[in-house]
Parts: sequence; structure tokens; C-alpha cells
Amino acid sequence: MDMILKKHHLILIASFTCCQLLADDGYRLWLRYDRIENESIRADYMEAIRFVYVDGESPMMAVARKELAMGLSGLLGQTISQKPADADRGVYLGIVGKSGYIEPFISPGNLKGLRSEGFLIKATSDRTIIAALDEQGLLYGAFHFLKLLQLNKSIAGISTLENPRIQHRILNHWDNLDGTVERGYAGFSIWNWHQLPTYIDQRYIDYARANASIGINGTVVTNVNANALIFRADYVEKAAALADVFRPYGIKLYLTARFSAPMELGGLSTADPEDEAVKSWWQQKAAEIYKAIPDFGGFLVKANSEGQPGPQDYGRDHASGANMLADAVAPFGGIVMWRAFVYSEETPEDRALQAYNEFVPLDGSFHPNVMIQVKNGPIDFQPREPVHPLFGAMPKTPLMLELQITKEYLGQGTHVVGLAIMFRETLDTDTFRDGKGTTVAKVVEGTEKGHQLSGIAGVANIGTARNWTGNHFGQADWYAFGQLAWDPGVSVETIYTDWAQITFTHEPKAVQVIVNLLTRSYEACVNYMTPLGLHHIMGAGHHYGPAPWVDSQSRPDWNSVYYHKADDRGIGFDRTGTGSNALLQYSPEFRAQYEDALSCPPEFLLWFHHVGWETVISTGNTLWDELCIRYHKGAGEVAAFRQQWQGIESSIDSERFKEVLMHLSIQEMEAKWWRDACLSYFQSFSRMEIPNGLEQPEHSLDYYKSLSFPYAPGIRPRW
Amino acid sequence: MDMILKKHHLILIASFTCCQLLADDGYRLWLRYDRIENESIRADYMEAIRFVYVDGESPMMAVARKELAMGLSGLLGQTISQKPADADRGVYLGIVGKSGYIEPFISPGNLKGLRSEGFLIKATSDRTIIAALDEQGLLYGAFHFLKLLQLNKSIAGISTLENPRIQHRILNHWDNLDGTVERGYAGFSIWNWHQLPTYIDQRYIDYARANASIGINGTVVTNVNANALIFRADYVEKAAALADVFRPYGIKLYLTARFSAPMELGGLSTADPEDEAVKSWWQQKAAEIYKAIPDFGGFLVKANSEGQPGPQDYGRDHASGANMLADAVAPFGGIVMWRAFVYSEETPEDRALQAYNEFVPLDGSFHPNVMIQVKNGPIDFQPREPVHPLFGAMPKTPLMLELQITKEYLGQGTHVVGLAIMFRETLDTDTFRDGKGTTVAKVVEGTEKGHQLSGIAGVANIGTARNWTGNHFGQADWYAFGQLAWDPGVSVETIYTDWAQITFTHEPKAVQVIVNLLTRSYEACVNYMTPLGLHHIMGAGHHYGPAPWVDSQSRPDWNSVYYHKADDRGIGFDRTGTGSNALLQYSPEFRAQYEDALSCPPEFLLWFHHVGWETVISTGNTLWDELCIRYHKGAGEVAAFRQQWQGIESSIDSERFKEVLMHLSIQEMEAKWWRDACLSYFQSFSRMEIPNGLEQPEHSLDYYKSLSFPYAPGIRPRW
Repeated sequence: MDMILKKHHLILIASFTCCQLLADDGYRLWLRYDRIENESIRADYMEAIRFVYVDGESPMMAVARKELAMGLSGLLGQTISQKPADADRGVYLGIVGKSGYIEPFISPGNLKGLRSEGFLIKATSDRTIIAALDEQGLLYGAFHFLKLLQLNKSIAGISTLENPRIQHRILNHWDNLDGTVERGYAGFSIWNWHQLPTYIDQRYIDYARANASIGINGTVVTNVNANALIFRADYVEKAAALADVFRPYGIKLYLTARFSAPMELGGLSTADPEDEAVKSWWQQKAAEIYKAIPDFGGFLVKANSEGQPGPQDYGRDHASGANMLADAVAPFGGIVMWRAFVYSEETPEDRALQAYNEFVPLDGSFHPNVMIQVKNGPIDFQPREPVHPLFGAMPKTPLMLELQITKEYLGQGTHVVGLAIMFRETLDTDTFRDGKGTTVAKVVEGTEKGHQLSGIAGVANIGTARNWTGNHFGQADWYAFGQLAWDPGVSVETIYTDWAQITFTHEPKAVQVIVNLLTRSYEACVNYMTPLGLHHIMGAGHHYGPAPWVDSQSRPDWNSVYYHKADDRGIGFDRTGTGSNALLQYSPEFRAQYEDALSCPPEFLLWFHHVGWETVISTGNTLWDELCIRYHKGAGEVAAFRQQWQGIESSIDSERFKEVLMHLSIQEMEAKWWRDACLSYFQSFSRMEIPNGLEQPEHSLDYYKSLSFPYAPGIRPRW
Repeated sequence: MDMILKKHHLILIASFTCCQLLADDGYRLWLRYDRIENESIRADYMEAIRFVYVDGESPMMAVARKELAMGLSGLLGQTISQKPADADRGVYLGIVGKSGYIEPFISPGNLKGLRSEGFLIKATSDRTIIAALDEQGLLYGAFHFLKLLQLNKSIAGISTLENPRIQHRILNHWDNLDGTVERGYAGFSIWNWHQLPTYIDQRYIDYARANASIGINGTVVTNVNANALIFRADYVEKAAALADVFRPYGIKLYLTARFSAPMELGGLSTADPEDEAVKSWWQQKAAEIYKAIPDFGGFLVKANSEGQPGPQDYGRDHASGANMLADAVAPFGGIVMWRAFVYSEETPEDRALQAYNEFVPLDGSFHPNVMIQVKNGPIDFQPREPVHPLFGAMPKTPLMLELQITKEYLGQGTHVVGLAIMFRETLDTDTFRDGKGTTVAKVVEGTEKGHQLSGIAGVANIGTARNWTGNHFGQADWYAFGQLAWDPGVSVETIYTDWAQITFTHEPKAVQVIVNLLTRSYEACVNYMTPLGLHHIMGAGHHYGPAPWVDSQSRPDWNSVYYHKADDRGIGFDRTGTGSNALLQYSPEFRAQYEDALSCPPEFLLWFHHVGWETVISTGNTLWDELCIRYHKGAGEVAAFRQQWQGIESSIDSERFKEVLMHLSIQEMEAKWWRDACLSYFQSFSRMEIPNGLEQPEHSLDYYKSLSFPYAPGIRPRW
């Protein structure tokens, strides 16, 4: 690996001796608003947009007006009037029932199906109407209109109505108050708590703009491994300053609640949720917060998991804890998001079983303003997991889906891995809980069960990196999360084609390469890291790089060997009836797909089965050969990605081109590292040869085991 | 304080609801190269600069060429030819004795006094010549030429020759390998060790450009509290990638050497500098480093200080340790910078005495490639300290001056405090060691003692903040350090007038306000923090905010009370013959200025004397009254700074204007906090009233003592 590193870095340095100070650094994300290059399209727009009038004077309408002014002046290359001029062609934005400017031009039929936060964009021969039931919908309509222009879409005759299908679309920042970010690979936290509330970083505003533009309407700014200090008066005031920035963008601020805060901050001797003094402390604290932040969203809670305090410390269950907090914020309209990512102090036979076992019995006992937040899979954001068995298994409880946008297990800050494919896989998975078609998306939307709340959370990949996400392509993951949170039915093709065009270029070949890269990289990554259902074989602690040999962590289920169970006979975790029987937590129809090792889809084979090295699997190869083939295929694809990227240099601005190329070079090296380290290790059990025609590992297994990375990013320091 | 905070933050939010994405964010520092607004000046330049030709093809000449191309196209608004055209008016850059393009136009008289790294800029009627003895001088000449244009100076008839007066002009980064920065207030480390050597951040290049433009020719990229890991092969390769970026900019890379590295990394049982295996380990390590970095600068070492390992652990002295390392790098031309900031495990009567006592006896015993790096004062970068007694006291040893650019004790990331005044105070101080006129500057230049080496170090204030220094005015401190390192004789007025014009505006009133702010803020800060020679009364650990009451730190000399010694009778540290007699470490003429409390200049009164509360001091006031007056004067001046800044809004781009205003608002609040907290505390000893006409403290002493800041920035986390 060392030699490869050396070579690449010399090449890259050589092309870097000059620099343009104003080169594109990616800070503007997908809101670039550069002048539209196609003259005829721009001319059409100029003809149709002689003015843009936002009918309303609130802070949110001011924000919409300013975004339109900024966007249009950039895209069209000239300032567009903001005054209404009835005779002329123009764009009107107004609230249904409130704006005389729009009423005459829309019929009840046009508005059919329009709901809160949704919008209608409708063009007639002499004007374009953007209508909504509320200001938030109008703001989203304004951003959508700008996006249509960024995409160079024709607006003549347009008639589009959009509603969000999920109510709470929320980012989760695992940001610590010391500025570090747990599992953050894009620098450090963008929240400068020390200088808040007085210093308002321009980033806070641009963060809000970016989120509003993709429909995100909530943000949890503190880590789920929570710190009670956030509830101290001066920190509440700091949080309020952030909420003030976010409010006109329709983004509610949420905080994580450390369950033991009444003791640590309040000086109580207990945090028992049934204790009256504890209840009273939280009620008082909620009142204080709502005084500073009238539209405070509520609490996100990680309790009784990985050492965090929780109601079980007092012999209470999750419902008792969640309801107590929910009651504190209920008078103010707040909600509680209670995480189902729990595992107890004692290690069970199979960690995958725990959340289901703890939560299913509580279905129906949560108060109406509680949602249970469930990770996509039962372990922990592995490159590929089957869906979490809780989806569909708690029909009386609204379940939020928690996705990880930051790539803790998918190459961290340097690998290009388009996550929309993975998100879609989860959303589209059929739980069969209410018969065929009970997809995770349907469960989360919750409409069939009549849930009042619905929600989706994404663990943010945002940091102080100039381009927000460290890797330019990480922006696509943030964008994709927003798009899927708004409409879980939107296609990956649409997401990535739009993103490529508004973020990079309209040049067709380049768009094709970018979309291909984003669409195929997920499968490639699964192949070079954890093919065939392998999971949790990364470095301990920092989770960087391959380490299937990890076997000395304090808890058995923190070790790689716990998960892959490789031995002389074979490899894989038997979760069928002959093993942990985790499969039993799924519906019979779901189970049927995976129960038999012979017919189990290869992507989950080793998740559910321990399979002999020489067993011929459904692909027609022996397990060992298939493992080798997949590792090599994944690593090989990354090399192709780099070449494809190099082929579109002329279509990409130079700074971003080089930065992506450097990351692809790192990814190429690391994909080989994963391949060679894992195959070397597994070979020590299988004692079989790497099939003919495939490269041998570059180094010995001892070499790979000797590598150490004490300062790999994304770990929470112990202050 | 809370109420004031609230008010400011509402005002600032209100003016912030819009944003310009391409607003000036300060990233370009003083190398803005915006088009020159004055048409006539620009026309003159266009006439005189029809082309610019750099006669040379090396990487360094390529860098000069590119900088000139970028700078001129920006300043003049059009691309300038890089081809020589003898008949036309143009600019030639060439090495003396090597370039036929310059030889005919310079006489030996023109070159008189020109030395290595220096340059000559000379305009005749038909051409401008930039000449130097070496490429580095030519690069500096190119930057100087661009600066002349940025300053709108006439280049007709110009004839200027400049040489650096100090040989090693070095930044010290207290950056940890985990990305944190000890005493960093501008975000986190700009070195992304994890992604090096492959990912070359654009910042590395722009960092090199900025430093080269002010003559800085070395950088120590790792913390003096050192980590042996930097010497592991993969980290050496990462460091080499940085060195590759810096090389064409004439900047050498240095590393900090952890004295115990032979044990921690090499597996030896000792780090004894007289042990042959230890010597051999360092020799081998030096050879490895020089193989990767042929122009590696050498080591900076903090040993036997604040818990760091060192030669005294083995009964050896500093010379033994320094010489052993110096011998390892000597074959390759490297140097060792050995810090004199030491204090032993046992607390002495007066910490100020220690460095002198340990180092003076070693004068003459250091090898020729060793410099001793001495902080400006004997304690630790306090707002105001008398000069360090070592200056002039080790005539046989080259002493480097260590200045702190990062504002650990001067308001950290938020206060505007122009440090050039403080740097000048140190440089101009007369040690009288070789008679009158033996200033610190002369000692550091070392020419009179015939030293082969000379050096000056500045602890960097640079971080991941978009504008590099967090506070826009922090850029002025970086710039001032570079200017004074190049020429310790340059005036503060010149430094700040130039900086204001090239960084902000040529508008005279605005320049005046900026220069005033930078010139007066240092004295204001000393007054609101530590007037009359007080020192080390800040918060423990993070050093944020006032805390004269600190009395429970593990070492006595880590406590505030150790330094101010306030009691019922008075306040101050008696360092005369009746006390610690630290004054005895200075020359008789120096001593004479401070020995008598009655005539001691007020700025050092309490540094050298314990003075009664009711004693009438040289200003004509009682000590208590003078203390109150100075605290109030300092805080009051900050309020005036804010008002002055608001008065030039029309001359400053909006983003930087608002950001500076927010920081000035924080500074105003914190100046009052310092004033009120310190006076409340000292009043508990003096039991005297705050003089009539001065505001009473806003809160009780208990309130100020109750404040805690567990996540104040700049602390090194314990990973």
C-alpha cells in the first residue's frame, strides 16, 4: 500500500502547483445559481419571469423572497423585480385563501390533495402561480421553482403539486459540545457553542437554506450520547440563537436529553421517571426551554444503550421513560423521539435480537407524542443489513426510520458511496406484516395505521469542511436523504440525475458518469468490505479499515469474530432455527426468503447462515470462490470509477475535479486494502487458494494486523 | 452579562436574514488581488507592466510566475503577458549572475548590501528589474512587487533593496495529530493527517503562499507537547507530502521531537542522550526523515517542562539533550531549536527564575546547530511581561525569540487585540547587556556576536476557520509577525496601515479606524485584564476569562493567587531583593528602572513589587484607585472601538463587517466581565470603594466565581 500511496501523491502534487483563489470549493452545495449557459432556455425564463412577487411579510416570506432574488439574479444574470405587475408575465407566490393575487388563477381542482407543507406550481399563458396552504409550503414551492430552473426544465404549462409524505424530516447531529463529532468525517462540528449566542456564523444560515431547499424541517443539534450541560441556562440561550436562525427556514430545533440530567444538572438524587421530583424537574426544564424557543421541537433520547443512563436503571421500561419526557413537552406541542437502538449490559446470544425483544411488548403503551426511532437494520448501520424486525411489528406505535448519512461503516470521509441505493433498499423492503406490499416506507409513513406522527431521521454527515461533507460526493447523500424523506417513492435515477446537474454540470456524458458512480458505488463498497452478508468486521473503536480479526474487545458483541464466526468449516452467523433464530422476529413471508441457505439471496447469506467454505451457493460457485470474486469485483470497480472520473475532467471545475480524484485514489487503495486484508484473514480458516486470475494479497496477514490508526477521525475524545 | 448577551444577539440576528453566497469571507487574507479601483493608478501600472518575465524554470520560479500572473490579472483586470519583449515596458525577474535579462540594467552599486533571500526592485524609464542572489529572494521580490501594487504605490523610479534581518522566521503550530490545537481558537488543525499524503488540501497551498508573501521560511507543524507517532514511517510520509507543497514557497518543514521517542516508538529501554543506542536511534531516524524530506529543517524540542520527558530524567542537562539531537541532523544541515520554557517538577519560590538558572550556566556548551528558543517574558505569554532575563545573558548561544500569535491570554478567538505593539515592546526593550542599546532585537539578530544562526518563532493562530484566524483581525497578528520577523525595525504604523489597505480598504477614514483599533487595543486589553503588572489571573486550564481567585490547582504556580499575592495590605509579587529577587537576573541598568516601587513604571509595578492598597503610586493615585481606573479605562475603550467600527460600515464588505462587529460585541461584554470580576475579587481584600464616577460591578463576586466553561476552546483533549 505504501508504494501506491507514494505514487499517487506525487502525481497529484504535480498538478497542484497553481491555484485559483476563487475556484469552486463546493460550499454552495446544490444551490449554486450560476448563470444558465443555454441562451435559449434563459431567454424563455426571462420572458416568463419578469417579476416575482411573494405575497406576505413574515420572516419566512422574507426568506423566500431573498432566496428567489438571489437565485434568479444568479441564474438569469440580472436582477428580477419583486413588485407585482399584473399586466406583465411574472410569478406570484401566495397562501390559499389569503392572497388575492393567486386566488383568481387556481381552481379547487388544482388544489385537490394539497396538504400542509405542500405546494402547487402552475403556469398559465401569462403568469406562474405558486400556491400553498401555509408559509412553509410556499417556501418549499419557492425552492422547487428555483430547482426547476437550475434543471433547465420548461416551466411553460407546468402544473405540479407536491406534498411531503413524512411529517418530521430530521437531521441528527452527533455533535459534542466540545466541537468534536462522533462519527464525523468532515472536520468538526459546525456549531460554535463557545461563541454563541452572539456570534452567528454565516454557515448557520446557509445550513438552514440548504436543508429547507430539500424539505428537511427539523434538526437535532446535539449528540445522542448526550450531555446534560445543554440544559444549563446559558446553553439554552445558545440553542435559542440557533433556533432563531432556523425558524424562518421552517426548521425546528430539537435537543438530545440525557436521562440523568435531573441528577447531573438538577442535583436530584435520582432520575427515576416515576419520581415526582424528576417529573417536575423535566416539566420545569421544558417550560424554560419553550420560553427561550417557543417552537422547540422536543427531545431525542438514547437510553439504556451503550452505557447511557435510562429508565431501566430504576426498574422502569422504555415507555415509562419516554412518556415522562413526552408529558413534559406535550403542553407546548413537543415530541419525544425514543431510540430503539438499545442493547443491555449483558451480552446476549445475538445482539440483533434485543431491540425487538425490548420494544414489541411495549406497543400501545407510548403516549401520543412519542415516536420510536429505529435504525434501518438490527445491528448498527452496517454496509448492508436486512431491515430491522421492528418495522411492522409495532402497529400501535409510530416508528421513525433512522438512516446514517455519515459513512461510519461505508468508507467514512474518503469513499464515494452513493447511499440512495441503500436507503431505497430499506424503504422498498416488504415486511409482509400487513400482507404483501407492507414496505418499510409504508410503515414509516404510517397513514394506513392512522398515526398522527410520522418521521425519518438521518445522522448528518456535515462538518466544518469547506464543502460541508469533506468528500464532494457526500453532498449527494445529504441531498438524497432530503429527497427520500420528502417522498420515499422518488427514484434513485431522479435524485442523482438532478443532483449531478445542479451540483456539477449539465454536460450529458459527465452527468452519466456521476450518476453511474453514485448508483453503482454502494454495491461495489459492499463487495470490497462485507460481501455476502458479512458485517461488523471493521477496525475497533474508530471503525476505520478492515479488521475481521478483532477478538479482544471488552464485550463479545464488539468483536468482529462474534459476527463472522469464521472457522475451519465455514463462515457466517446462523440466525435460523438452528442458531439464534433472529429470523423468527420477522413475518413468515419475510422469513421464507432467507430460511434456506441454498435459496437465500447471496447478499444476506452469511447474515443468516453459517456456510461451509466449499459449499456451492446459489451463484453456482463455492462460497470461498464467490467471496474472493466479490471482493475483487468491488475493488476493481473503484479503479474503474477513478478512470471514468478522469474521463470527464473537461466538464468539471478544476478544484472539485482534483479533490474528487484524490478521494477516488484513496478509495482505490483502501478498497484493495479491505479486499486483501479480509481475504488473507479468511484464508487462514478456509486454507483454500485465491481462484486463478485474481490478484494475490499484496502483503501478509501479519502486516495488515500490524496497522494501527490511533487518530482515525470520528471518535469522541474523552475530555 | 446574560442580559447584554441577549440584547446583542437579537440585534445581530435581525440584520442577518439574508446572505450573499459569494460575499467576502476573509479566506484570501492580504492576498486579495481585487481590481485596483483608482483608474489613473491602474492606467499607470498597465503602462509600466506590459509583461512580466521570470527568468528561470524551477518549481520556485514557477510559483513566482503563477503568483504574478494571478495577482496582476486580478489587480489590473486583464491577463499580463509572461513573455519577455525587450522593446516594450515590462518587469524582469532574474538571479544576479545568471540572468542576461537583468544584468545590463543593474550596477554593482545597486546590489551593494544584497544578501541571501533579499531582493532589489529597481525601475528605469523602460523596465522594472527584480533581482536577487537566489530564488528565494526572487520569490520574495515578486510578492513585494505585488504588495506595492496592492498599496497603490508608484513604481516609477522605485529603487528598493530589502534583506531579512533574521535567518529563521518560523511558525510554531501547537497542532496535535488528532486534529485539535492546543491554544487554538480558530477551529481545529488545518493538517488533515488522516488523509495525507494523498489528499492535498487547497489550504496547504494557500497557507504556503500566505507565509511566503510575508517572508516566513519555516513551519513546525506539530505541537511542542510532542507525539512520537510523527516519526512512524507512515507519518513521515505524510509530513513529506506537506514538505513537497511548502518547498517551492521556500518554507522548510520542522517537526517537534518527543524526547522519549526512542522508547515509545523504538522500543528502547531508555532515552538517555548519552546512551549509544539512543544516539544511534536518532541518527537513523534523522536519516529516514531526510530521505523523505531532503530539505527537512530540524527539530523543535520542549523537554523537562510541564511533564514532558527530557535529558534531566537521566541526570543530563539541556545541552546534552540538545547536542545529541543536533548531531543527528547536522550531517544533513538540520538545526535544533531547544526551548527555554522549562520548569521543574518541584515548585520553586518564583517560577520566573527557573529558565535563567538552568540555561545561563550552559552558555557555550551547545553545538553550532542549536538555538535556544526563549519566550518574550519569563512566565508564559502573559498580556504584559518584562522581557525574559535570558536575552543578552547567553552571549555564546544564539537565542531565538518565541512570540505567541495565538491569543491564549489576550482574549483568545474573539477579542481584537493588535499584537504588533506588544511584539515591538519586546523587540525594543533594552537589556543593557552590552551597554545601552542592546535591545532584544539586536540579541536575536545576533550579528554583533557573530552567531551563524538567528531565529524568531511565532506560535500560530491558524485553524480551520474559513478566514484562517477565526477573528478577521487575527490575520493582522499573523501578518505583523511576518513583517517583524523579516525586519524587527519596521514600525507598527507601517505594518497596520499596509495591512488595513491590502486586507480591507483604501478608504482613508476606514484605514484610520482600523489602524487605531489595532494600535490601541493592546493597551486596552492589558488594562481590562491585567493592569499595572498583574499577571496569570485567568481561568485555570482553558485560560478563558477572569479568575484571580484560582487557588486549588495541583502546583502552586498554576494558581492565580501565587502571582497576584493580594492580601489585606496590598497586592503584587515582590521580585526585588526583599522578595524572590528575580530582578537580579537582569543587568544593573535594567534593574535600576524597576527596583524602586515609587519610581517603577506602572506597567510593571505589581510584577516586581507588592504594593499597599492605599500607597500613592507614580501616577499620583492610590494603588487601588489606579487599579479601578485602569480596569474601567480598558473596558471603556472597547466600547469605543465598537462604535468606531460601526462608523465605517459603508467602507467594509458586509460579511466581514458583521463578523467583526459580533466579535467586538463579545469583546465589549467580556472586557466588562474581566473588569467587574477582578475588581469584585480584589475589593474583597482592599475593602475600599470603587472610586466615584466608575460603574459598580454588575454581579456579585460569587456570581463570577460560579461561572464555568467546561468546553472553552483550545484545550488538548485526553484521547
